[in-house]
Amino acid sequence: MSSPATRPEGAAPTTSGTSAHEHFWAVIPAGGAGTRLWPLSRQRSPKFLHDLTGSGRSLLQATWDRLTPLTGSQVLVVTGAAHVDAVREQLPGLPADQLLAEPSPRDSMAAIGWAAAVLEARDPEAVLGSFAADHVIGDEEAFRECVTAAVAAAADGHVVTIGIEPTHPATGFGYIELGEPLGAGPAHAVSQFVEKPDRERARTYLATGRFRWNAGMFVVRARVLLDLLAEWHPELAAGLRALAADPTRLEQVWPGLEKIAIDHAVAEPAAAQGRVAVVPGGFGWDDVGDFASLGSLLEDAVGMPGVQVLGDASQVRLVDSTGVVVPASGRLVALVGVEDVVVVDTPDALLVMSRERAQDVKGVVEQLHVQRRTDLT
Amino acid sequence: MSSPATRPEGAAPTTSGTSAHEHFWAVIPAGGAGTRLWPLSRQRSPKFLHDLTGSGRSLLQATWDRLTPLTGSQVLVVTGAAHVDAVREQLPGLPADQLLAEPSPRDSMAAIGWAAAVLEARDPEAVLGSFAADHVIGDEEAFRECVTAAVAAAADGHVVTIGIEPTHPATGFGYIELGEPLGAGPAHAVSQFVEKPDRERARTYLATGRFRWNAGMFVVRARVLLDLLAEWHPELAAGLRALAADPTRLEQVWPGLEKIAIDHAVAEPAAAQGRVAVVPGGFGWDDVGDFASLGSLLEDAVGMPGVQVLGDASQVRLVDSTGVVVPASGRLVALVGVEDVVVVDTPDALLVMSRERAQDVKGVVEQLHVQRRTDLT
Repeated sequence: MSSPATRPEGAAPTTSGTSAHEHFWAVIPAGGAGTRLWPLSRQRSPKFLHDLTGSGRSLLQATWDRLTPLTGSQVLVVTGAAHVDAVREQLPGLPADQLLAEPSPRDSMAAIGWAAAVLEARDPEAVLGSFAADHVIGDEEAFRECVTAAVAAAADGHVVTIGIEPTHPATGFGYIELGEPLGAGPAHAVSQFVEKPDRERARTYLATGRFRWNAGMFVVRARVLLDLLAEWHPELAAGLRALAADPTRLEQVWPGLEKIAIDHAVAEPAAAQGRVAVVPGGFGWDDVGDFASLGSLLEDAVGMPGVQVLGDASQVRLVDSTGVVVPASGRLVALVGVEDVVVVDTPDALLVMSRERAQDVKGVVEQLHVQRRTDLT
Repeated sequence: MSSPATRPEGAAPTTSGTSAHEHFWAVIPAGGAGTRLWPLSRQRSPKFLHDLTGSGRSLLQATWDRLTPLTGSQVLVVTGAAHVDAVREQLPGLPADQLLAEPSPRDSMAAIGWAAAVLEARDPEAVLGSFAADHVIGDEEAFRECVTAAVAAAADGHVVTIGIEPTHPATGFGYIELGEPLGAGPAHAVSQFVEKPDRERARTYLATGRFRWNAGMFVVRARVLLDLLAEWHPELAAGLRALAADPTRLEQVWPGLEKIAIDHAVAEPAAAQGRVAVVPGGFGWDDVGDFASLGSLLEDAVGMPGVQVLGDASQVRLVDSTGVVVPASGRLVALVGVEDVVVVDTPDALLVMSRERAQDVKGVVEQLHVQRRTDLT
């Protein structure tokens, strides 16, 4: 594999991209409990299974809808064994042998790497694009153009990430620093990945214009991903390839796989060697990290300025109040004289929260874990 | 009847008071929807039927418990026809013929006057003490001492009210100005009744030391009350006496009765003529007018400083929050980063309110009335 930074100027990435497109598969890791969206999101019914935008489609379904114009049915979903039935129900178009059920969570490298190994075995030329099941995209057409450019860059042997144009100095995401442009396309070399910064550092990043949010989207040849993994985590790579060769070994192999995020296992060391590219994307992206974030994705309810309702707004009554309301129990929800409040009303648990403390709902979930209230988490 | 202000100095009110005690009846008007305690209090299940102090007894039952040491079973309850069954169930010791069912609400003069007429017919010497079914008393022994003094003064022919020692410049209550002492007992003449004042005026009242809260407690001979009423509202007095003489005429007579409060019908005009006495009371009183008031009656929940819970505190989870929580649906209630909030969680309606806006819940109830959501009011 040649280092992307040394690819000759003027080489046309679109040529190989076009052919690569036929080999392109979407991989959708559908995991994570979405603790900061409790009590709507639960371990048994996590975030990706919920319609969090009022579109009528769950985040998982919206991810499918967004990718299949590019891939057709070339989609692999990797999810926890507990969610297999729900995923099948929500995605009737997903072929049965394209749903991988993890016996237990072993972090993103095992999940995506397993999918990569399965694809590599089916098609040695396979290019995979990994996109989380629980993110929201604004401009889907722009997203697909960006992915198409990433597929082209991946076909040339790069690990390609998509760098989201930041809209504010967020402290909840990692950042990607752009390096030199790679040829005529939109791809750049990655100068570095950086961890979640503090507010001041985030401001500095934005001021340079060279930093993008890391949304955890990777596009890469399946074989390239596994070969790179084999350089730094040979046992993990071997285990995943063994799984793909003999799926009956799942229960035996899976528990021994190293638990590591794809960023640490491959993306960061590969970037340090100049082997990662980034395609900047300006399509509007949100990871719906908490209820404040969810509120910002919703329009104000009709006749309710400053109030976003996820669900049936006719169940909400207001007197001088603003905030985010999720009436998910069928009951009437009345707000009087409260500002920037979050109210999430489910059949067995109610959350009332200050919007600016939206991250701190995890404190409630932790209490419930300690108290073994698994009925509520 | 002699005017109380002209009763000879040195006359011993306790003599007639002692004998009057045998003729003393408690009258409990059990009415009012308690709109400002919505959604706990409803038209179908009003405030007085609820345990709002966590004592295990409803406000009505607590009123019974507080009065029967003085009256035995000499208690009349006047309530709406819709609540007769609930009152019977809550007060099994109340004789059936001592529960008066109003066909429709016709304000406090008709309710108390009807009870007075019934008592007058049974016992021409009857003294009635009228005490709302939905108030809370702190020191019950002090309350009963105060009532006993009022009964003595009433036996002498006064209309006696109990003036609650104010603890703050409340703007939600009327006030009573004390006049000269009446003899050796605690009773004073009433200088005037004044309507709910603004904050500044209330402060002025408190500074004088002469003003008491008007809690709507009246102690008076049944005959005196009706004779006074006959002076200013002869048709109403005649109607009530006709009802007592022939209970079968209820449906015919009741709808034509004048709708007026006892304060306006009798207490204020009688006070202007120097015929009203007041016994000051310092026993701790609250009309549980709204959820802020309710919170102030409750202790902080164990391990939850600044949080008052009416109900099962084990259903509440907190992260940096204060306020009043009523978990009345059996669901978990979690608060995160909210201060001075009121959360009332019932099976079909949820209220989230700023504590300082506790009066404004009536705005929600008004909306529901306009929308004919009688299922929720």
